[in-house]
Amino acid sequence: MATTEKASPRDRLLDATARLAYRDGVSVGIEALCRAAGVSKRSMYQLFDGKDAMLAASLERSIPWYEAQLAHPHPETATPRERILHVFERLARASLDADYHGCPYLAVLVELKDPEHPASAVARGVKERLAAHFRADAEQGGARDPELLARQLLLVFDGASARAGAGVERLDDGLATAMVTTLLDAAGMR
Amino acid sequence: MATTEKASPRDRLLDATARLAYRDGVSVGIEALCRAAGVSKRSMYQLFDGKDAMLAASLERSIPWYEAQLAHPHPETATPRERILHVFERLARASLDADYHGCPYLAVLVELKDPEHPASAVARGVKERLAAHFRADAEQGGARDPELLARQLLLVFDGASARAGAGVERLDDGLATAMVTTLLDAAGMR
Repeated sequence: MATTEKASPRDRLLDATARLAYRDGVSVGIEALCRAAGVSKRSMYQLFDGKDAMLAASLERSIPWYEAQLAHPHPETATPRERILHVFERLARASLDADYHGCPYLAVLVELKDPEHPASAVARGVKERLAAHFRADAEQGGARDPELLARQLLLVFDGASARAGAGVERLDDGLATAMVTTLLDAAGMR
Repeated sequence: MATTEKASPRDRLLDATARLAYRDGVSVGIEALCRAAGVSKRSMYQLFDGKDAMLAASLERSIPWYEAQLAHPHPETATPRERILHVFERLARASLDADYHGCPYLAVLVELKDPEHPASAVARGVKERLAAHFRADAEQGGARDPELLARQLLLVFDGASARAGAGVERLDDGLATAMVTTLLDAAGMR
């Protein structure tokens, strides 16, 4: 999401917020965001209610890109098991990026510690949608308890992303996918 | 860790740092910490190099308490499997606390995004020590690959603590312990 000269002040603010909040944390100051975006604070306040709203909007804007990253390229021909494993293969690949700091939505939830924050609501929605995908795949694959399996998979996803993002774990040897395979097998999934 | 009138300025600062960084995040300001501790900034700088050092010291100080929480009360008579499961039972119990925001050491790693930060080093040490415990138990229990099993268990631990801490998951139905049982069985652990 490179900022071009032609990008609108709104887009420049959302770019800067997404980039700096991910790199430095949600406590990044509003002055730093406006400076990075090349937008005055006055103009910012004409576009957004404040930093909270801007953070929520920046997270909301990345959802289509984020979900496309995790989606299987051929969902119709892939098996439910392949669709689930693909999510964890993408996670492992993403974690190799030098700038990787884990799932941006989990990071925001951990950092804000406030379920009422508008950005927490966006992040929660992303997690719930991923759980719904896992649940649907689990059902289609004949898992004994699709709801439980989906919760287990989210826990692996968030644990893997938090640990790899914090630099205390590596996923490129298939750590998470092997765990997921064990859980899928134990759940009786085809 | 209640602050009493008799606690030293150093202890009051460490109490305030532990409490506020856990509740509000590591970005809590140095003024807020000094105010909560009832210690002047000048006195604080006579005791610590700054907020980074104070945060690291506060995390360091809680390690014995934290590790005692997770340790089995009768480690000699418990089986390795029981010792491992106990950690996840304690995690599930801790997550019921209204003020629970997940593992404080994981939170610091996620929030700081800086492996060089002195507090990150403390947090990493806690995670490495927990992994070493898991590895030793896995070896004693005859797991096929103790190192791999320990990494899997840490991933479950951190995923569970991050999700429960963020309020997007509940652990009181045994979600994490059931996953761990599946992983222990799959690893050939007695």
